[in-house]
Amino acid sequence: MNRRSFIKKAGIAVAGASISPLMFASAQRSKFNFEMVTSWPTSLDTLFGTAENIAKYINEASSGDITVKVYPAGAQIGALEVYDAVSTGAFAMAHTAPYYFINKNPAHGFFTAVPFGMDSQQFNAWMYAGNGNSLAQELLAPDNMVSFPAGNTGAQTGGWFKREINTVADLQGLTMRFPGFGGQVMGRVGMNVQNIPGGELFLALDTGVIDAADWVGPYDDQILGLNKAAPYYYFPSWAEPGPGVCLYMNKNEFSGLPADLQSVVADACARGNVEMLSKYDTKNYTALQELIASGTQIRLFSDEILAAFAKATDEIHAENAAKAPGYQAIHDDYRSFMDNVRAWTKVTQHAYNSFIFK
Amino acid sequence: MNRRSFIKKAGIAVAGASISPLMFASAQRSKFNFEMVTSWPTSLDTLFGTAENIAKYINEASSGDITVKVYPAGAQIGALEVYDAVSTGAFAMAHTAPYYFINKNPAHGFFTAVPFGMDSQQFNAWMYAGNGNSLAQELLAPDNMVSFPAGNTGAQTGGWFKREINTVADLQGLTMRFPGFGGQVMGRVGMNVQNIPGGELFLALDTGVIDAADWVGPYDDQILGLNKAAPYYYFPSWAEPGPGVCLYMNKNEFSGLPADLQSVVADACARGNVEMLSKYDTKNYTALQELIASGTQIRLFSDEILAAFAKATDEIHAENAAKAPGYQAIHDDYRSFMDNVRAWTKVTQHAYNSFIFK
Repeated sequence: MNRRSFIKKAGIAVAGASISPLMFASAQRSKFNFEMVTSWPTSLDTLFGTAENIAKYINEASSGDITVKVYPAGAQIGALEVYDAVSTGAFAMAHTAPYYFINKNPAHGFFTAVPFGMDSQQFNAWMYAGNGNSLAQELLAPDNMVSFPAGNTGAQTGGWFKREINTVADLQGLTMRFPGFGGQVMGRVGMNVQNIPGGELFLALDTGVIDAADWVGPYDDQILGLNKAAPYYYFPSWAEPGPGVCLYMNKNEFSGLPADLQSVVADACARGNVEMLSKYDTKNYTALQELIASGTQIRLFSDEILAAFAKATDEIHAENAAKAPGYQAIHDDYRSFMDNVRAWTKVTQHAYNSFIFK
Repeated sequence: MNRRSFIKKAGIAVAGASISPLMFASAQRSKFNFEMVTSWPTSLDTLFGTAENIAKYINEASSGDITVKVYPAGAQIGALEVYDAVSTGAFAMAHTAPYYFINKNPAHGFFTAVPFGMDSQQFNAWMYAGNGNSLAQELLAPDNMVSFPAGNTGAQTGGWFKREINTVADLQGLTMRFPGFGGQVMGRVGMNVQNIPGGELFLALDTGVIDAADWVGPYDDQILGLNKAAPYYYFPSWAEPGPGVCLYMNKNEFSGLPADLQSVVADACARGNVEMLSKYDTKNYTALQELIASGTQIRLFSDEILAAFAKATDEIHAENAAKAPGYQAIHDDYRSFMDNVRAWTKVTQHAYNSFIFK
């Protein structure tokens, strides 16, 4: 993490500085060599691939004025160390999910997903056309960072269960891998919640060390082989209905870019955002078909279980608001936007899908 | 339209051409001055604003190497003349909706929206991660154009009706403004379908010249005052569940750009795409609330009516496939992608919304 010398490397003038700056201004463009740490193992290839694509788009659109070297989690620093690394300037950029940092301030969760929160399209609306983005920048400013929406997994799932669950009573004492806010909710409803790294997940579920496990969605879950360790795949994801990921950038590094290259970064992140959601939707439907064909049983959570999770979610929001600076304001804006946009979703997509799926 | 001389203006080297190209390559960057015609009146400010934003992002990210002058419909050429104008090279770019050109080939409709087709998120998945984009390029290649997804209105509505409709019998002889494929479907079900320009729509509906009218969505409809001419606002939009708009670019002009500026155009269009959907969702929910507060009555189409529209839609697809080159292949790919992605939507967003809206 002692990489502050990196900042000194960032501004390198090309040959030609002795020529009149008026005649040959463009010959004196600075080059920027950035490093992007990520929270993704290469096995999460849609997530890591999005980070790589954003780096590529930045490099292409800047005609090589910016190069970005992308590292998977663990190559330079750990998956959860990327926030501090960009904040301190040790690395210029990170591609990550803000909700990994709810231990710093639970308000970071709103910028990925919160239980019973917005879906991907609604979340984008809040970020691009509501107050979401300005609230994100306010939250990050004390840590000297800016951020851009830079990907979305789309709806995740409710996870894999070794036996069917129908009631809240069935959940009591059940051991499940589930991180973050969703895990807190489950703990409150009576489950034993653990956080287990992806690499150890199959074995833990297969041997019965845990009774249930959540990872990402059909495509990534299939790679881990979770379908071979548990027969029941539950939907919908009440905890992560449309998680957004982002690019964090050190504020000094971003401010040091000329305006055109700042625009290049913003455009590349938006492209990465819409492309990643598209890729996940496409890969997930294919994987879901394969899983079903190989014997996976699809189940929907009962209303009783969802209502219990929703109640616990509201309790945790209230507790977070009481202790975390800025939480209440972000919560209220998020909640207000969500309630309003849902009234629009209800008469459009939901009314449409209700006919299509009848 | 006799503007072919424009092409000659496109490549203007900056001062410094006598200097060694190896030393000062970047000083010799060509500048590109493009004109973008659109199919939007300025009153459709979210659509026209997206065209302007894409032009701005291109200008910013290219550091001024590309300037794009944007024209509303009618300023240079009519809204529906933009296809030929870009095809011939009279203008370099157009921001428009491909389904305006179904009279050239009904297959263009798939690249905006078809009745009972995909929603915005599913359509993006087809375009960015399925075969949608390559099929679009194949369709446009004979007309010397390339295209990029460059906006989405999100779900539209079922339109404004002066009286309630509950059955297919209620539709018989009803006169409605509805363009395109949706209008063809309505005609087949027994309605009288007209296409009336937006500027004349309020008067036609208010005076009873027509019984019903469709425009865009709550935000744009409110600007026309359609709520003051008819009390019933029907949902969902079975005809336009998630219309995409695009940037057409003349292929010679695009090929003439260096690789970095080609990337700048692609990135700016993707940013325009995700931002436009976000803006429409946000403006539409606000307008919907205002409309309801001012007395608008929300109604849902009955299953009987939707089923009749769906049946007519399938008939028209079959007729189009029999007469239009390439239609069947695009239809089959679109339909296959849609059926598959819907199985994913059903267990995720639809299962989630079914609990949220219970």
